[in-house]
Amino acid sequence: MSTAISPLAPQHVPEMPAIAGVAMATAAAGIRYAGRTDVLLALLDHGTTAAGVFTRSKCPSAPVEWCRAQLKRGKARATARALVVNSGNANAFTGKTGRAACKFTADIASRAAGIKPSEIYLASTGVIGEPLDATAFDGVMDGLVANAKAGGFLAAAKAIMTTDTFPKVATATARIGKATVTVNGIAKGAGMIAPDMATMLSFIFTDAAIAAPALQAMLDEAVVDTFNAVTIDGDTSTSDTLLIFATGGAKDCPRIARGGDPRLKAFKKALQRVLGNLSEQIARDGEGARKLVEITVEGAVSKKSARRIALSIANSPLVKTAIAGEDANWGRVVMAVGKAGEPADRDKLSIWFGGIRVAHKGARDPGYDEAEVAVAMKKPEITLKVALGLGKGRDRVLTCDLTKEYVAINGDYRS
Amino acid sequence: MSTAISPLAPQHVPEMPAIAGVAMATAAAGIRYAGRTDVLLALLDHGTTAAGVFTRSKCPSAPVEWCRAQLKRGKARATARALVVNSGNANAFTGKTGRAACKFTADIASRAAGIKPSEIYLASTGVIGEPLDATAFDGVMDGLVANAKAGGFLAAAKAIMTTDTFPKVATATARIGKATVTVNGIAKGAGMIAPDMATMLSFIFTDAAIAAPALQAMLDEAVVDTFNAVTIDGDTSTSDTLLIFATGGAKDCPRIARGGDPRLKAFKKALQRVLGNLSEQIARDGEGARKLVEITVEGAVSKKSARRIALSIANSPLVKTAIAGEDANWGRVVMAVGKAGEPADRDKLSIWFGGIRVAHKGARDPGYDEAEVAVAMKKPEITLKVALGLGKGRDRVLTCDLTKEYVAINGDYRS
Repeated sequence: MSTAISPLAPQHVPEMPAIAGVAMATAAAGIRYAGRTDVLLALLDHGTTAAGVFTRSKCPSAPVEWCRAQLKRGKARATARALVVNSGNANAFTGKTGRAACKFTADIASRAAGIKPSEIYLASTGVIGEPLDATAFDGVMDGLVANAKAGGFLAAAKAIMTTDTFPKVATATARIGKATVTVNGIAKGAGMIAPDMATMLSFIFTDAAIAAPALQAMLDEAVVDTFNAVTIDGDTSTSDTLLIFATGGAKDCPRIARGGDPRLKAFKKALQRVLGNLSEQIARDGEGARKLVEITVEGAVSKKSARRIALSIANSPLVKTAIAGEDANWGRVVMAVGKAGEPADRDKLSIWFGGIRVAHKGARDPGYDEAEVAVAMKKPEITLKVALGLGKGRDRVLTCDLTKEYVAINGDYRS
Repeated sequence: MSTAISPLAPQHVPEMPAIAGVAMATAAAGIRYAGRTDVLLALLDHGTTAAGVFTRSKCPSAPVEWCRAQLKRGKARATARALVVNSGNANAFTGKTGRAACKFTADIASRAAGIKPSEIYLASTGVIGEPLDATAFDGVMDGLVANAKAGGFLAAAKAIMTTDTFPKVATATARIGKATVTVNGIAKGAGMIAPDMATMLSFIFTDAAIAAPALQAMLDEAVVDTFNAVTIDGDTSTSDTLLIFATGGAKDCPRIARGGDPRLKAFKKALQRVLGNLSEQIARDGEGARKLVEITVEGAVSKKSARRIALSIANSPLVKTAIAGEDANWGRVVMAVGKAGEPADRDKLSIWFGGIRVAHKGARDPGYDEAEVAVAMKKPEITLKVALGLGKGRDRVLTCDLTKEYVAINGDYRS
């Protein structure tokens, strides 16, 4: 497997500040990988609230079911004292032993940290279908608790990587009342397309003081145009997990009960920025990706319709291979619009690559300069816009191209 | 572009008998290709009935709209006297000029053959978005009419190829009353995945005497488990066209008015056999295909649900690349079942590759022999079965693997 860093990796890795109320440590438990960390423990101060969104798969992993149950049990007062994440094994499609592995892991962490299992969240990423040997955590948990300290977000992002080629971190600040709060996020991804791996995990930490229902409402809203607007290959994993923890540790931060509270305006933007940044990094690290592709659909009958058409384009193997070949193949875009099943009128359709209109009103744009488009298609970042001319629905999704390396990584690999 | 014949091509090409009432000729009009035929004319005897099914794309090609209008105009008495097909240019996304090209082509054929434009059917396959220069047909149409003769189905199948690596023909006979009738079919395909090409075309000819509505009803039924159960890459073309023509030329054949007539029982089977054979050939000629994959889903809540799950598996890039890599990666199958959005219970799921059960009741089957599965995965024809354990819904689809050659063919090509 290639270990070369994606050419689309961000040039700059931000300094990640500590978050009051969060202490972290990583360790090498040898779950699957040798010579690297594969377990992350985050300890959270008393009173930390939690919210999460998960895969829509009908066959979710055991940790996804575990986290869902934790949040459901806590309901409006969902709290968290610890998060344990491992890479190397997804604990997915592991039957009863998968549930047992979750319980065993939580019990170890509970004993080591002196907290209740009901306040421990779990996530796993890696091979599907192999039992997760949770006893591996037994040897490292006491050390993790002892070593946990403020900061360490980059190390945390590294410990949860599978076939990611770079660790993914993002940070932003916002004012709530007179307090300045921080939102830190880490993610591992491109995992929907990783060999045998499952899959997208992201954890957000903030020192804001926000009640669980408000946190959940903001998270639900923030994912729509960030994580839910990214596709690598249309393959949804069994393990997608996005959790947010609010410790309330920021100095002078008022405790916010409702998601609609106007004091959350800046925080919502910061959260959106962190999720947007992390989800873009996932597209940049799509397996075999050589192009980051931003697809905008406008003039649709609704945002929902625009989203469906944008995803139909983003998941089309023909569109993705054309972009890999640096070909502004708008005929394939028409095909993908047509197969989406959404209202579209061929004779009103216009298409732009790299800001250059190549098709207009249902036919090739007679005015466009092929040389200019060829230059645009050579860039590592490609914009593709489709105007339907029907209404005001507009949406945007991110994806990457489909290269021979994708097939090599996913086809040459053996489970 | 590779011109090597697919390793999955049928070993045996059947002798194609003539169909009473059908005369055919092919010619080289130089639409796009040099040194090969690219136009097919089929002349049909007076009284030939017609029916058709077409792409569900919202952006269909001009010839698709033309044929739909012909059938609609004819309604219960839709008749046909000629079919003109060209390869090299799909006449799709060509705006007004596309409609004009259809009319021009029909006018030329009408004059040359002395028949009404309203009884002429058209189909085009090839590049999208380039205007089709229908004047090219002007130079060859008189010759086509003069040369048209009985038989010639293999030559016809060759003239409509684009990136197909072999011509696709199939034939079957059936008894209707005391008459023996023949069903001949030709197709070009794998086109949903062909570079810039559009796309699946198939034409069926029979000497049975069947009224248009009965023909349409039988065609609608026959496509469900044949052409509609094949997917190469999930990309639906703008041009998919399947037409059937019944000349009534068979000796002593009673004229059948209703699709439900019991005398059609054997004919329906013959039609199903021809369509099934042609659609399998399309999967065998999927671009870059090295494996023919039959996916069976059983125990679903309904046939419709089984179909959706089967297509979710068949269109999953991760499943397709795993099969290309000869890896019985059932974890990816679970993923594809889970993302289909249909009822599924992880803990009741069983999965077989090549008839060998590799997963059972939500976990790896402890009894399976990896060496035995490895042998099965090396074969050119792979069966994949999923049992959901929920109900009696069952369905089957055909697909092929996703190889680096697919990406090469579709990515290295320039439009």
